[in-house]
Amino acid sequence: MELRELFPVWEKLTPEQQRQVEAAARPRTAARGAMLHSGPADCVGFLLVRSGQLRVYILSGEGREITLYRLFARDICLLSAACMLRGVQFDVAIEAEKDTELWVLPADRYKRLMEESAPLANYTNSVLAERFSDVMWLVEQVLWKSFDKRLAAFLLEEAALEGSDTLRMTHETIGRHLGSPREVVTRMLRYFQGEGLVRLARGSVELTGRERLRELAEG
Amino acid sequence: MELRELFPVWEKLTPEQQRQVEAAARPRTAARGAMLHSGPADCVGFLLVRSGQLRVYILSGEGREITLYRLFARDICLLSAACMLRGVQFDVAIEAEKDTELWVLPADRYKRLMEESAPLANYTNSVLAERFSDVMWLVEQVLWKSFDKRLAAFLLEEAALEGSDTLRMTHETIGRHLGSPREVVTRMLRYFQGEGLVRLARGSVELTGRERLRELAEG
Repeated sequence: MELRELFPVWEKLTPEQQRQVEAAARPRTAARGAMLHSGPADCVGFLLVRSGQLRVYILSGEGREITLYRLFARDICLLSAACMLRGVQFDVAIEAEKDTELWVLPADRYKRLMEESAPLANYTNSVLAERFSDVMWLVEQVLWKSFDKRLAAFLLEEAALEGSDTLRMTHETIGRHLGSPREVVTRMLRYFQGEGLVRLARGSVELTGRERLRELAEG
Repeated sequence: MELRELFPVWEKLTPEQQRQVEAAARPRTAARGAMLHSGPADCVGFLLVRSGQLRVYILSGEGREITLYRLFARDICLLSAACMLRGVQFDVAIEAEKDTELWVLPADRYKRLMEESAPLANYTNSVLAERFSDVMWLVEQVLWKSFDKRLAAFLLEEAALEGSDTLRMTHETIGRHLGSPREVVTRMLRYFQGEGLVRLARGSVELTGRERLRELAEG
């Protein structure tokens, strides 16, 4: 995809700003498994995904990982331009989960554009707020309330009772069993699906990663 | 303090925007202990602290709390205007830790101003990025690496060995014992100080909340 089709609020940039973006952006590819970013010192720049898939995660001292979110075509990655964001200093890692094509814009260039352009600054705000929210939600549910463990344990128990890896249950029903709102169940099941632990269909949940669900439930 | 002295990037707003801020802002007070915000549904608006102190924290299912950060005079609070930030839906709570005076601006008014003003949008970005970073740092150290527990346990052990609540140690030395960089030690000690667990002076750490340190170390 072309830069002008991908770059946020392109239509709202001035011709001069558009020219600057085109002059500064560089295409880059990342093979599946490649690390694009690790640690707070790294500053790859502002990333724009053309195709493929990136995974953004944190790593504990003992090497455990939590996926924070994934980025697909058209998504932008701000954390890779952390140096641009005053004070961002946590150890996020970014890997290519599939062969990925990107546009890379140097962080200082993006920052200058944002200072000039209210639409770009507002777009950036909304992305930042959304990521902040996603990450906090996950942190609360996973690290703070251990909802991922409880859900994994529940799914395994149900599968054992039913003698089947495909559970015919609504998210609402699961939520009633675990004392959690349906929205929380749905969101965590989608997270599990992203991690390859389950496959979701209307009215059913299929367990596709029993071993890892067990590790999660017991971990 | 006057609104014009407190409002971010006041000088960079147009006279019309300044007029709008003055027309829309309402003074409010919150007595010590009052809750200003709780849960994702709440949308008090954009808050600007005139005096006093606010504490922003998350609450686990079992009622445990983690302080995310504190806000003092001149600080702005965006999470209280969560409805303005698309997709923010985690359960943050905000309480007045001291008698506090505020200016409150409705979230939609702030959002519209930000859409017009690149300086205000950029300022908001930097605040959001900084809070995001603070919160992630804390989450990583506290929930993910349990650095708070390890530090609390270390301080209690040292105090027992020395027979004193005042430890003459540099942050660098503490870091060497715990295998952590000095910066991480300093930041966590400051967090402890904010929570009333220690008092910091040049070259020393005084334990002021032994009981709570013990709970933390054993919790």
